[in-house]
Amino acid sequence: MTKAFHLTTFGESHGVAVGGVIEGCPSGLKIDQQRIQYDLARRATASTTFASQRKEADVVEFLSGLLDGVTLGTPLAFMVRNTDAHPEDYEAMKEVFRPSHADYTYQQKYGIRDWRGGGRASARTMLPYVVAGSIAKQWLETLNIKVTAEVLSIGGMTDPVKMEALLAQCRAEGDTVGGVVHGSIVGLRAGLGEPLDDKFQACLAKAMFTIPAVKGFEYGDGFSMASMRGSEANDSMAVNEDGTVRFLTNHSGGIQGGITNGETVFFNVAFKPIPTLGKGDRHDVCALPRASVIVEAMAALTTVRFL
Amino acid sequence: MTKAFHLTTFGESHGVAVGGVIEGCPSGLKIDQQRIQYDLARRATASTTFASQRKEADVVEFLSGLLDGVTLGTPLAFMVRNTDAHPEDYEAMKEVFRPSHADYTYQQKYGIRDWRGGGRASARTMLPYVVAGSIAKQWLETLNIKVTAEVLSIGGMTDPVKMEALLAQCRAEGDTVGGVVHGSIVGLRAGLGEPLDDKFQACLAKAMFTIPAVKGFEYGDGFSMASMRGSEANDSMAVNEDGTVRFLTNHSGGIQGGITNGETVFFNVAFKPIPTLGKGDRHDVCALPRASVIVEAMAALTTVRFL
Amino acid sequence: MTKAFHLTTFGESHGVAVGGVIEGCPSGLKIDQQRIQYDLARRATASTTFASQRKEADVVEFLSGLLDGVTLGTPLAFMVRNTDAHPEDYEAMKEVFRPSHADYTYQQKYGIRDWRGGGRASARTMLPYVVAGSIAKQWLETLNIKVTAEVLSIGGMTDPVKMEALLAQCRAEGDTVGGVVHGSIVGLRAGLGEPLDDKFQACLAKAMFTIPAVKGFEYGDGFSMASMRGSEANDSMAVNEDGTVRFLTNHSGGIQGGITNGETVFFNVAFKPIPTLGKGDRHDVCALPRASVIVEAMAALTTVRFL
Amino acid sequence: MTKAFHLTTFGESHGVAVGGVIEGCPSGLKIDQQRIQYDLARRATASTTFASQRKEADVVEFLSGLLDGVTLGTPLAFMVRNTDAHPEDYEAMKEVFRPSHADYTYQQKYGIRDWRGGGRASARTMLPYVVAGSIAKQWLETLNIKVTAEVLSIGGMTDPVKMEALLAQCRAEGDTVGGVVHGSIVGLRAGLGEPLDDKFQACLAKAMFTIPAVKGFEYGDGFSMASMRGSEANDSMAVNEDGTVRFLTNHSGGIQGGITNGETVFFNVAFKPIPTLGKGDRHDVCALPRASVIVEAMAALTTVRFL
Repeated sequence: MTKAFHLTTFGESHGVAVGGVIEGCPSGLKIDQQRIQYDLARRATASTTFASQRKEADVVEFLSGLLDGVTLGTPLAFMVRNTDAHPEDYEAMKEVFRPSHADYTYQQKYGIRDWRGGGRASARTMLPYVVAGSIAKQWLETLNIKVTAEVLSIGGMTDPVKMEALLAQCRAEGDTVGGVVHGSIVGLRAGLGEPLDDKFQACLAKAMFTIPAVKGFEYGDGFSMASMRGSEANDSMAVNEDGTVRFLTNHSGGIQGGITNGETVFFNVAFKPIPTLGKGDRHDVCALPRASVIVEAMAALTTVRFL
Repeated sequence: MTKAFHLTTFGESHGVAVGGVIEGCPSGLKIDQQRIQYDLARRATASTTFASQRKEADVVEFLSGLLDGVTLGTPLAFMVRNTDAHPEDYEAMKEVFRPSHADYTYQQKYGIRDWRGGGRASARTMLPYVVAGSIAKQWLETLNIKVTAEVLSIGGMTDPVKMEALLAQCRAEGDTVGGVVHGSIVGLRAGLGEPLDDKFQACLAKAMFTIPAVKGFEYGDGFSMASMRGSEANDSMAVNEDGTVRFLTNHSGGIQGGITNGETVFFNVAFKPIPTLGKGDRHDVCALPRASVIVEAMAALTTVRFL
Repeated sequence: MTKAFHLTTFGESHGVAVGGVIEGCPSGLKIDQQRIQYDLARRATASTTFASQRKEADVVEFLSGLLDGVTLGTPLAFMVRNTDAHPEDYEAMKEVFRPSHADYTYQQKYGIRDWRGGGRASARTMLPYVVAGSIAKQWLETLNIKVTAEVLSIGGMTDPVKMEALLAQCRAEGDTVGGVVHGSIVGLRAGLGEPLDDKFQACLAKAMFTIPAVKGFEYGDGFSMASMRGSEANDSMAVNEDGTVRFLTNHSGGIQGGITNGETVFFNVAFKPIPTLGKGDRHDVCALPRASVIVEAMAALTTVRFL
Repeated sequence: MTKAFHLTTFGESHGVAVGGVIEGCPSGLKIDQQRIQYDLARRATASTTFASQRKEADVVEFLSGLLDGVTLGTPLAFMVRNTDAHPEDYEAMKEVFRPSHADYTYQQKYGIRDWRGGGRASARTMLPYVVAGSIAKQWLETLNIKVTAEVLSIGGMTDPVKMEALLAQCRAEGDTVGGVVHGSIVGLRAGLGEPLDDKFQACLAKAMFTIPAVKGFEYGDGFSMASMRGSEANDSMAVNEDGTVRFLTNHSGGIQGGITNGETVFFNVAFKPIPTLGKGDRHDVCALPRASVIVEAMAALTTVRFL
């Protein structure tokens, strides 16, 4: 029993800190903390001027599991303190349920909630996943596996110029907009995944729906396959000179029967618009620029569990 | 710790039997075996003439956990013997990998595979989920929760007449076709689901991707929300006279922040075309007619874990 | 993530069958069914004339996971039908709680119970563990790991002649008696076990307390170490010529800090007397002769989870 | 599915901090932090002059899951910084394996270890269990369940005067000594525990063997029952006037068939002598005075999982 890589997270948006504990990280892995800070910066500021202005230092502090920057194999705990929290900005939320937020459902489930900035339902709770995902990506890269994600469309626009124009328009109108992130995992060997209850794609889907605002997930040719014929959807194989097999197409998205076939795994993740409207300085017009690094993290965290 | 309802399944398509063990089923539940057989018939034959001709008796035998038809709270084991198996029909598969099947990936993972009719990757492995799902639905109905699923489209057609025509055409051409199943869960109370790692929708998505041939999942307004503005996507609430809250719309699909809000949970599941082409008598032209009862089962099995 | 060997069991003493599903068994393992039947015979009849007279055929039937006697890596399901059940013998139990049995606690937990011969609390529920343990031992033997267990004492007697005399006396008096089983695992490499939550000895202890009637577990020098000085309890190491380490003593019982050190793991398991008194023909005077094979099974099932 | 109370721990003895994350703690529980500090003081200093002189402040800091001292139902993270760590004291350990410590086994398992003061194998890693156990006890007390543990014997002595004399003698001789802690859980209702794989006593045993230096566990009359006759070991029941049942004896230790019967659960835990000899100022002569609060914590953490 090799203990599988597992992340336990904690933290409310405006509490003391957000963080996590990683169990099952292999020993002897040299951690590049600059890479982690780079991924945190991707999550915090994005590349456009439309991202939220809440610019925290977001400096990760490791509490255990490392000796001279190398993993010990024991639990790797880390946290990021919430230095820029202004809970008083949210005082008014104490008594109201914001539309399409989790305020109402948390109140129903727990009978109590941290009303300060979304509490445990805030997008800030993705931060520990980004940290752990960055570590997972570093491990995967030692195995020549590369996980990436990027914005595919915003508000239906796939042209970057039109995306920017749409974001500017939304900002001017005090509105928000959704979009799609495309992700891929390159370099996986064939044979990863379980036949039924832990199919590779099922674990990937579950991980993506952990991200706030995600409404849809598809892999390979996805929903478009529902309109295809079998004769156009099948992936043929050819035999190489050395007797190994290669695939001529990849409609399947690198997975068959729940198990990787050695081709690239690719998938799309649909995000609804951010529900907080017209708030100007502290909120995003669109989650998408920040979302790519989170999708990457979730894909990496899923992948390492199958190694 | 109330032990959660959990299904462990077993069986190869052409082995001795397929079946399962349910743990965490509450005691004192009267099981209607006719309902189970009815659901098995839905899975086996579907309502059109285009379904596979493999018509097994598929009689479920309970091995434990029942006394006079009432659950004891102990593990509920059941099996269905594979009476109609003709492994010799598949002898030719022993040496080849069928395109877009799991033959290759199983061989890579295990170094051995049951080549007889798909083995553990056969759609027949869904049978235990249908049995357990039928039991889960019976439990849910005692709580006034209703899970249903139906074919939304086949090959892009939503009109039943056009669906049938398309299926006939595919059959004539020795081809197959994909489609979409729409599911819903009515009657859930607010407060079910976990904030992050076990969001209701994430567990639902994972369950659906356990079904062979599923390539996409969306809930609420799904992928179309990626093109929406926040101003059109938000669900407003109103306060009833008794102080309780009601929702005016349900773009969210009954879940916010991973937790049910008391509205109907609804979702779509995209199926690719069946990869086995031109096989006439023993194989389906389309998985969709059979798929509804499986989608229902998966939704019910997910829901009972949150009760 | 290599899926760990996991057994799910089912069955009531006088229901249709008892059995189990093994997940995580490696593929390509040749199963010797004669060995399994031999272990079942050890459980059923023991070596003395004092064992229970319920002599079932106890023939194990495999339902899945095997092709030509070789494991496929998929779930391995099996069952043994309860052919010798005489539920009418237990009709009187329907209304009474037998002393020191689980009748009362099951009724409190479930509000219903299978009163026929102990139902799920019967010692017969150990049968699936014996089958799975026999498979686990076969796997372990391919790795040169040997799990054994034997009766250390009965009623405080360690001399076999006195044990037999004591059993005869108990039988004559309509009484029962307890005892201790000694187990060992030879051939484990160093490095198996987890530092805290899944220490090797903790998992072993949990497995042993799953057996009915077990009241105590100790490993290494066990309870006697509570009276020792550190100077007599410590295990010294010496360095071999090739630089590797060897231990000069083994008070620790092969485990340090929750992790195996390469020495033999050994332990004792204490059984209370069987609570059913004076029943003559169908019940044991002492669980010990039958218990060894169950202890072996539990030790093997624990060990394979750490491979 | 009520999420069960679950503790994830982290930390090396001489790293930045030790701590943990509790999931599944109910919302609305008022936490008394003074009680936690009191339990930490019990763990750190004990009541005799023979305890280790490493007297850390051990101030617990909560990072999440609390609002105004009341639990939110979300993960409750906490840590205690290692302020008194003198890793340079352990520089010599870098190259040697101390006898009967985990140095060798960690090196074998991970290929790397934190040699500073035992790292993850240090008794200091019990600190997070004490914190979480203190919270669990606070929850249990709201349900009128009381968990306690105390030293039963040291070096075989049960008389407190003789225990102190023995400890003084060991200290003078640079030696250490083992002992037994007795624990009990009062106020449990009948019906807690699972029939086979999660018997109450099996989970309790597993928890106790998580504590460093534990070599044995017994519950009820324990090992002594191995020498008893059934006629003296059985617990009789009587029927009260109101028709409920009461037990006349409690040899069983409050559990039958893995499920609590409403009587007091009691048990003994055997500790071997501390392996570090003759170190004077920084190390204990005996773990027992400190161990009681850890045994209490483990019992409480086990119990809350069954509520």
